[in-house]
Amino acid sequence: MQIALVLYPKFTVLDITGPFQVLADVPGNDVLFVAAEAGPVIDHTGRSPLVASKTFGEVTAPDVVVVPGALEDFEPYESAVRWLRDVHRTTTWTTSVCTGSIFLAAAGILDGIDATTHWARRAHLERLGARYTEQRVVERGKVITAAGVSSGIDMALTLVDRTHGPEMAQAVQLAIEYDPQPPFDTGSPSKAPADIVEMVRATMGSTVPGS
Amino acid sequence: MQIALVLYPKFTVLDITGPFQVLADVPGNDVLFVAAEAGPVIDHTGRSPLVASKTFGEVTAPDVVVVPGALEDFEPYESAVRWLRDVHRTTTWTTSVCTGSIFLAAAGILDGIDATTHWARRAHLERLGARYTEQRVVERGKVITAAGVSSGIDMALTLVDRTHGPEMAQAVQLAIEYDPQPPFDTGSPSKAPADIVEMVRATMGSTVPGS
Repeated sequence: MQIALVLYPKFTVLDITGPFQVLADVPGNDVLFVAAEAGPVIDHTGRSPLVASKTFGEVTAPDVVVVPGALEDFEPYESAVRWLRDVHRTTTWTTSVCTGSIFLAAAGILDGIDATTHWARRAHLERLGARYTEQRVVERGKVITAAGVSSGIDMALTLVDRTHGPEMAQAVQLAIEYDPQPPFDTGSPSKAPADIVEMVRATMGSTVPGS
Repeated sequence: MQIALVLYPKFTVLDITGPFQVLADVPGNDVLFVAAEAGPVIDHTGRSPLVASKTFGEVTAPDVVVVPGALEDFEPYESAVRWLRDVHRTTTWTTSVCTGSIFLAAAGILDGIDATTHWARRAHLERLGARYTEQRVVERGKVITAAGVSSGIDMALTLVDRTHGPEMAQAVQLAIEYDPQPPFDTGSPSKAPADIVEMVRATMGSTVPGS
């Protein structure tokens, strides 16, 4: 099973390394990073390149696609959107984490269907035709979208359950000791204090009115 | 605040990218990857290089150190151990994720103190003089060790709480939408079915009797 993890300038590292870690050790999975050009692609902090081993042109029929998001708001790269539109026809699963769903929406993959994204980018996703759904992982047909950044871990475990069954997914969860115990309970806007929500929203900025 | 994230051959990606994502966007944090040599360092899957921007010799007084683990059992690299022994004298925080604590132990930093590691590597840690403690995040003085792979996210949020206060830690948790909802509850050996525990233990292998 070929799994293409998409990279583009200013992607968010954990969006894609969470799924990478869940998927890469599963027997039979062939996980690779793909981008417009092969070579290092710099993340949104400017500090951590990941390295694409293949170009979009070289990966024409992946079984699974995972698209990460970025913390800054952005217009999706046309090269990635075109590639997604093409490969989605033959994928078994097309997935995204955080604002990676903005790419799927721009490719028409989310037209009128339920999907999620980072909580602060809801309006952007809706503007592109998806029905924003306030869930951590949203599965509709062969499309799975996940909420912000760290939710890619939960999404990828769901994906392993679908592709390899619950025993394999449970084994991966145990191998990465995913027994979360965050020191606070502020991981969603419905749980965090209002001033923290506003602080994060202000820091993340927005070019999209209302998002 | 200079934060040195250690890389070495066959490290596990999520061990270090979890803390990276939590720490890198905090104002005033200068996060960098450091290794024996600058340049790409390949992870345990062979698929995902991260890139060290500095060598150990170039980073002589980091405020914070984070050491990731590896899923295979290993003897810690001497160059990293020597460097840790040196820089630990002046760090504000010395931390590890997963079997990164094996490096700290080899450097004498965990002699006789409570610490944790990946659940399947407990014996290796104890053999090197630490007191294994079955907790996700163990803080003793300026040393914080975390359990397997994904626990680095919880550890790093704890660290941000200590360095920048609870509001910043809560804001980071919300920014990365860390509101975990794993599809299963098998993230620790005390929760997973016995056959899953044995399956993972067998897959991870061991060169250390009893671990």
